[in-house]
Amino acid sequence: MSLLVEFLQKLLKKLNKYKMKIVQITLAIIISAMIMSCNQNKEKVENTTQELTTIFPKGEKGSNDLFTGNAYPTALVEADSIYNTLVGNVYFEPGARSNWHSHPAGQILIITDGIGYHQIEGKPIEIIKKGDVVKCPPNVKHWHGASADVGLQQLYVIPNIDKGIVKWNEAVTDEQYSINNSNQ
Amino acid sequence: MSLLVEFLQKLLKKLNKYKMKIVQITLAIIISAMIMSCNQNKEKVENTTQELTTIFPKGEKGSNDLFTGNAYPTALVEADSIYNTLVGNVYFEPGARSNWHSHPAGQILIITDGIGYHQIEGKPIEIIKKGDVVKCPPNVKHWHGASADVGLQQLYVIPNIDKGIVKWNEAVTDEQYSINNSNQ
Repeated sequence: MSLLVEFLQKLLKKLNKYKMKIVQITLAIIISAMIMSCNQNKEKVENTTQELTTIFPKGEKGSNDLFTGNAYPTALVEADSIYNTLVGNVYFEPGARSNWHSHPAGQILIITDGIGYHQIEGKPIEIIKKGDVVKCPPNVKHWHGASADVGLQQLYVIPNIDKGIVKWNEAVTDEQYSINNSNQ
Repeated sequence: MSLLVEFLQKLLKKLNKYKMKIVQITLAIIISAMIMSCNQNKEKVENTTQELTTIFPKGEKGSNDLFTGNAYPTALVEADSIYNTLVGNVYFEPGARSNWHSHPAGQILIITDGIGYHQIEGKPIEIIKKGDVVKCPPNVKHWHGASADVGLQQLYVIPNIDKGIVKWNEAVTDEQYSINNSNQ
């Protein structure tokens, strides 16, 4: 009889182990599902921070005569005699850039999000990014736009517009746009 | 003897139930911890979207002689003779505001995030928020700052600084700051 008891005990233990395994497997599945769910949340956060922050309406696509790729310029302060200053925003999609151009009284660029390039004629490309403020001297040919992979949100301030606003030139070629031309 | 087997079987079942309960309790604790952890992540996301987007370094707290509450002005373009323009950023914590002041050649405010107030002397308070651009005419007393509950991130552009930059006046009282004074 003691053999029977021993057998029963062993059988119950096995059953229990089996039950335990089922519980363990269920636990593992639930925990995995929850970890995946948590990770999905984290991924969403990371994606959100990778998107550019928009402050102003995107506006209409800029003319192909002035921009290469998809650039969206929006005037914020139109020319007037009191402030003597023009302010606007441009959203450049990745790869988009302005033509070469110059400003009789210079220009100030304020980068509010993303990564882009700015180049003064004859100098290497500078990398510009969120928080940067760039001064472009009067009557100097330059271009600016997004990096190849990340877009650019930038404000521009054109001071002293009584001296003139902008003189447009030719498009920036793919070769000129190449980051191989960069100083960073 | 069969009674003993029965007793042993019952005891083992009880022990198993007890084990199962321990497993269930452990499972419940683990799942609760993971749910809390997931919720904490979500809370962080929600807090992040509620927090203001910072573009520039916060900088040092502005003088109590010029601001009420916690305001953090940062110069971005210092006065120079070429651009004839001053650009800067101010982060106002909720409730913070500038003193009354005026600009000989006016000022342009560009709100990059948050909610705040702007008031020209003798007119009702205007509510200003992310994406707004406000022109403040030359030689007109005004003040600007955050709303009582939400902070304000704002760029300022002072054009034509050859005419002067700013004339500071008295603090904005709590009564003047009151939103009851608003037009919205």
